[in-house]
Amino acid sequence: MHALIAFIDLTAVAVFAASGALVASRKQMDLIGFGLMAAITGVGGGTLRDLLLDRPVFWVADAKPLAVCLAVAVVLFFTAHVIQRRYQVLLWADGIGIALYGVMGAELARLSGAGPLVAIVMGMMTATFGGLIRDVICAETPLVLRKEVYATCAVAAAAVHIGLVFAGIPIEAAAIAGFGAGFALRAAGIVRGLSLPPYKGRPGKDY
Amino acid sequence: MHALIAFIDLTAVAVFAASGALVASRKQMDLIGFGLMAAITGVGGGTLRDLLLDRPVFWVADAKPLAVCLAVAVVLFFTAHVIQRRYQVLLWADGIGIALYGVMGAELARLSGAGPLVAIVMGMMTATFGGLIRDVICAETPLVLRKEVYATCAVAAAAVHIGLVFAGIPIEAAAIAGFGAGFALRAAGIVRGLSLPPYKGRPGKDY
Amino acid sequence: MHALIAFIDLTAVAVFAASGALVASRKQMDLIGFGLMAAITGVGGGTLRDLLLDRPVFWVADAKPLAVCLAVAVVLFFTAHVIQRRYQVLLWADGIGIALYGVMGAELARLSGAGPLVAIVMGMMTATFGGLIRDVICAETPLVLRKEVYATCAVAAAAVHIGLVFAGIPIEAAAIAGFGAGFALRAAGIVRGLSLPPYKGRPGKDY
Repeated sequence: MHALIAFIDLTAVAVFAASGALVASRKQMDLIGFGLMAAITGVGGGTLRDLLLDRPVFWVADAKPLAVCLAVAVVLFFTAHVIQRRYQVLLWADGIGIALYGVMGAELARLSGAGPLVAIVMGMMTATFGGLIRDVICAETPLVLRKEVYATCAVAAAAVHIGLVFAGIPIEAAAIAGFGAGFALRAAGIVRGLSLPPYKGRPGKDY
Repeated sequence: MHALIAFIDLTAVAVFAASGALVASRKQMDLIGFGLMAAITGVGGGTLRDLLLDRPVFWVADAKPLAVCLAVAVVLFFTAHVIQRRYQVLLWADGIGIALYGVMGAELARLSGAGPLVAIVMGMMTATFGGLIRDVICAETPLVLRKEVYATCAVAAAAVHIGLVFAGIPIEAAAIAGFGAGFALRAAGIVRGLSLPPYKGRPGKDY
Repeated sequence: MHALIAFIDLTAVAVFAASGALVASRKQMDLIGFGLMAAITGVGGGTLRDLLLDRPVFWVADAKPLAVCLAVAVVLFFTAHVIQRRYQVLLWADGIGIALYGVMGAELARLSGAGPLVAIVMGMMTATFGGLIRDVICAETPLVLRKEVYATCAVAAAAVHIGLVFAGIPIEAAAIAGFGAGFALRAAGIVRGLSLPPYKGRPGKDY
């Protein structure tokens, strides 16, 4: 299980790092800027998760996650121009990341003894955190402010995983189902613009 | 005392969660967006406080704060439109929150053995943190940048409370006086635009 | 060594606090706003470092760093107008800070048993964090988004220090060399606009 968690962590780190490096390319940063954005975005969500759960921060004791971030940054610094539709790739990488971290954040919270509500919120927060700081630092519109489903996908990934685990399904199957649900939902958001009904009230007299 | 702290925490969480959900309504988010903003704003300040003081994060072991945030989010998603002057309500909810967290942050720092200066700064930081990340995520102008008193109210709440406790006043009375001072000051800021003298120098030649 | 670390910490806190207070002066804040920005910017990077390394947060047990921040805030509230080119002073104060924290963050990570990669990234992150939240809160363009070398200087300070320590040079000499390298690089960035080659690709079809 520990090996599986470490592997999923590395995958999530890599895709978030790629999304961070792609934002760096949109801002015409230099190689160190690519490394900074890849590292912050790549390990941001897992760092928040570990601080909240009072676990040792996963990339401090083990250099592999940072090595992955920096490798992704270097590769994209020299190759991002071959990607024609870079913002789309950024969205897909980010989408894989939120589905993975939605499951991972919820599962690690559950292993720490948290109940379902805390586990699902932990999945939601840690999945969206890396992308949030990436967008805030780079003055991009945070993806949570866009109309199509986003945080919803992290919630779906976490809720499906936690629901199946509490229903007695083996953890690996529950994790795959959770990831699939979250990622499929996000894919529908990116491709079809799928959205939940927004708040409909008037903006308020003193907006 | 623990029951009192837990109750005040829940109240502060509820009013900050309401301010987060009201910002979500201004941004026309969906129900999950309401939940995310209510949760981040509701537990943000207390989370920073617990991390800084090396206490277990208050909403990880106990699901009540999150349940309060989500309940507030659901209620406001369906009822915020009946509030005519929604930004005013947001300001008042936020004002109750900063006065409560100003006292709470200072008191918990004091219980951890901190001196008055550290306790008051802890009150200031934890009281303003939830609102800061709410405004930064949603690209609203942070309230600390506005002219009228804001961070000052958290400082007042913390300083009155800490001063009275060090003067030998019972904690409950000191907390009520601290809350009253901070909230009255903020009320004067919201209603009358009360402000401290701003920095008066020229912006600088290279502004 | 502990006394030296504490002294360097205080110096870094003071220069970052000055940069925070100078941003507050650009935003025409009141005295409490100066104190808040000086405190957040002054202790921000060290706080992140201590949370990540699971050390007690340095300003909670010891009030000196906060006292320095508030003294800097008060002095600058009344004297910043005598500084003609305030943004330049802000840049230089920030530059001293990132070189100091680049070395400090890396060294404390190394003392915690981290390898060179983790130590250098810790230096980079903790050196840039205080300035990042200062700029995000105050809606200034984060310095990492500017063309000239910035995060690079923190990396240089951390890498030179760590490289020399691993090469057997005494820690004090390595720290001075690391600080000198990072600060000289930043000075070249401020004075000459020294920059690394930016990413050159097209912005992408769907920018």
